[in-house]
Amino acid sequence: MQFELTTELVTQVEQLIEQHNDKALKQLLQDFHYADIAEILDELHLKEAMYIIKLLDSETTSEVLMELDEDNREKVLENLSIKEIAEEVEELDTDDAADIIAELPEERRQAVISNIEDAEHQAEIKELLAYDQDTAGGLMAKELVKVYETWTVAGCLRRIRGQAKEVTRVHSIYVVTKDEKLIGRLSLKDLITAKNEQKIADIYISNVDFVYVDEDVEEVARVMQKYDLEAIPVIDQNKTLLGRITIDDIVDVIREEADKDYQLAAGISQDVEADDSIWQLTRARLPWLVLGLFGGLGSVFIMEGYEDALNHYKELFFFTPLIAAMAGNVGVQSSAIIVQGLANDVVKGSLLSRLLKEIGLSLINGAVLGILVILFGQLMGMPLKFSLTIAISMMSVIIIAALIGTFVPIILDKRGIDPAIATGPFITTSNDIFGIFLFFYIAKLILGF
Amino acid sequence: MQFELTTELVTQVEQLIEQHNDKALKQLLQDFHYADIAEILDELHLKEAMYIIKLLDSETTSEVLMELDEDNREKVLENLSIKEIAEEVEELDTDDAADIIAELPEERRQAVISNIEDAEHQAEIKELLAYDQDTAGGLMAKELVKVYETWTVAGCLRRIRGQAKEVTRVHSIYVVTKDEKLIGRLSLKDLITAKNEQKIADIYISNVDFVYVDEDVEEVARVMQKYDLEAIPVIDQNKTLLGRITIDDIVDVIREEADKDYQLAAGISQDVEADDSIWQLTRARLPWLVLGLFGGLGSVFIMEGYEDALNHYKELFFFTPLIAAMAGNVGVQSSAIIVQGLANDVVKGSLLSRLLKEIGLSLINGAVLGILVILFGQLMGMPLKFSLTIAISMMSVIIIAALIGTFVPIILDKRGIDPAIATGPFITTSNDIFGIFLFFYIAKLILGF
Repeated sequence: MQFELTTELVTQVEQLIEQHNDKALKQLLQDFHYADIAEILDELHLKEAMYIIKLLDSETTSEVLMELDEDNREKVLENLSIKEIAEEVEELDTDDAADIIAELPEERRQAVISNIEDAEHQAEIKELLAYDQDTAGGLMAKELVKVYETWTVAGCLRRIRGQAKEVTRVHSIYVVTKDEKLIGRLSLKDLITAKNEQKIADIYISNVDFVYVDEDVEEVARVMQKYDLEAIPVIDQNKTLLGRITIDDIVDVIREEADKDYQLAAGISQDVEADDSIWQLTRARLPWLVLGLFGGLGSVFIMEGYEDALNHYKELFFFTPLIAAMAGNVGVQSSAIIVQGLANDVVKGSLLSRLLKEIGLSLINGAVLGILVILFGQLMGMPLKFSLTIAISMMSVIIIAALIGTFVPIILDKRGIDPAIATGPFITTSNDIFGIFLFFYIAKLILGF
Repeated sequence: MQFELTTELVTQVEQLIEQHNDKALKQLLQDFHYADIAEILDELHLKEAMYIIKLLDSETTSEVLMELDEDNREKVLENLSIKEIAEEVEELDTDDAADIIAELPEERRQAVISNIEDAEHQAEIKELLAYDQDTAGGLMAKELVKVYETWTVAGCLRRIRGQAKEVTRVHSIYVVTKDEKLIGRLSLKDLITAKNEQKIADIYISNVDFVYVDEDVEEVARVMQKYDLEAIPVIDQNKTLLGRITIDDIVDVIREEADKDYQLAAGISQDVEADDSIWQLTRARLPWLVLGLFGGLGSVFIMEGYEDALNHYKELFFFTPLIAAMAGNVGVQSSAIIVQGLANDVVKGSLLSRLLKEIGLSLINGAVLGILVILFGQLMGMPLKFSLTIAISMMSVIIIAALIGTFVPIILDKRGIDPAIATGPFITTSNDIFGIFLFFYIAKLILGF
């Protein structure tokens, strides 16, 4: 069952397209999952991909569209007519449908919506499009199975058979009052293990997790992970049941969130992939490099200020990359631990105890590294006073870098700014300048040049 | 419903424990989810946490145990007798039970297993403990709902009522032959929408995803994400159904995987948290700092080799932190994009086209940064020849750093080594040394000192 995307397979598909051998193409593709078809399409030229999109039925292609690489999906959508897009959208669950429409250029959006034939589907998609993409409302689907508290188990099963046809997977059955307020849940399991004549009101579980429609998606992800939920109902302030969010959408949120933090730590400011264009990659990377450049030019300034030291202690200048590297590495380590701790909600205790801990940690690390520097100095025949100066100023730089790395993210977080922004080049650059300044300052104090 | 861990709540719990007010404690805690109780326990002293563990019934405490912070769970388990641990394990699903037992010291493991009263549960846990933790077998649970192809829908529903009681959530119903080979699946929804007298053989879906028991967990995560699966059956080479993996376990795998990559990029070599001990944090951070130190000492060596340049071009030495920073930043950016691309399986195309792309990208970035350096030089009144030297050698460093950052992870990946190891300090350090060497080498070629 393991699908593998091989060059042979892609070539085979390309040849069948060239030969216009529709029958063989359909036969080849019908056994593949739509995520696999999307992988094949991502490898084809646009013209070939369009050929397959037009060949297969919209039940399949709509799902394939959802799985395509975002850039490719955009191009495919550009090559579909309003009516064709509306047909695809018709086949999709409301959340995916709304996502597709949101990706369209403003001027096509309205046209596609008005071309959706199913009035209920149309209204639901419109509703979803009104919510902020980063909230529960922007992530939820309208498809869900709900029962009224007044129904019996037998009546329920009968009616669920109707509702369930439209729902890909039944996770939980939500129990509502006659005015649509969420009061509890039932699992399909509970339902089939209950007696036919029992009333829902007597068997439902009132302890139901939910999120409000305007809740941030990251908070929804946190709640669903913490409580191991596979679906969660979404309600408004009046407790009216509006939709549900399933774990597969949350998996994507978690992935994107982790990818974003990782990219920020690596100095990439936008969501880019290895296969994006040079222009996209440049936009994501250049700003951080410019920041690094300014940091480096700042160091040039500082060193020019200490130019006199060149006469007696020229070796000081040989150590600046080392000092900058230590300041940068320590800063990134400290900030990464805090950023991750903040994300997982495990940063507790007072700021003072954290301060003391970082100082203690830096003293240990700094002492070990300092001893290594002194040993290196002895091997190189440097005067002990000089080696000691390097070691002591490096230790000071390490302590300060650790404190900056620790407290900048905490302060950003307290002010409601994503602390992940403080990792990577930001911390590295500021610590570079600060580290080199401190290094020369302390060296001057000790050596007195 | 939103639970919030407040200092007041923790104080209240502490006071009730001190007063030995068991009734009020039970009443307070009974409304909390076990994940919430675990959060409270993580805040208490061990003695207080033990008080609550002993107070609550094992149905609750077993789940609380699973949610505790790993360090705290270890301490709690140390304070429970063999018999008590066996009681907790008895309440857990087989996968969680095996995880708990695997965390115990060798000498207690056997004793706990033999104290499990339910013989089937005991045998299943033993089986799970035999699998490698990083494989599908190490992640799966034995709890699942299966039906034989020969059954009827009505018979199925009757029997499932029995099986389902032991399974927390029914995702899919697996269809097996009489010798336990997996041949397909059914959803509960299919079952309740089918007619009572139909045979399973006539209604089951033969297209079923599965993984082999020795499959790597990361591959299981990839498959489940790609196909949006909420559970996947695990089979052996004979297609015998052995267990199933649910998406909540996969969410943890994805999280841990992302956290690990992030930590490697930030130069932290082990899974540590902000609240770990200074000793644990030192062990995770010091090795990378020592690596950085050696890199810095390497630069010292290189610069001593170019000491003569100090007489005419002392400013060259002021630019070394800038060069090191650019080499480091570019290298980390390139490697992060590749590492993420490899993880998401989107790095395609030939090595040659990737080479050309990285060179093109570096030329653009390098040109912009070079112009900024020349402008800076003009502002500072540096000779144009000198500014140009800096700009040209910086561009060369950027190109080489990008190539190293791109190809080191690709090569590691091809050799079966986790490419994430090549991000962060590893790339930064090697690029620092290499960048500074190249910088002076090119400067010497142009300026001829």
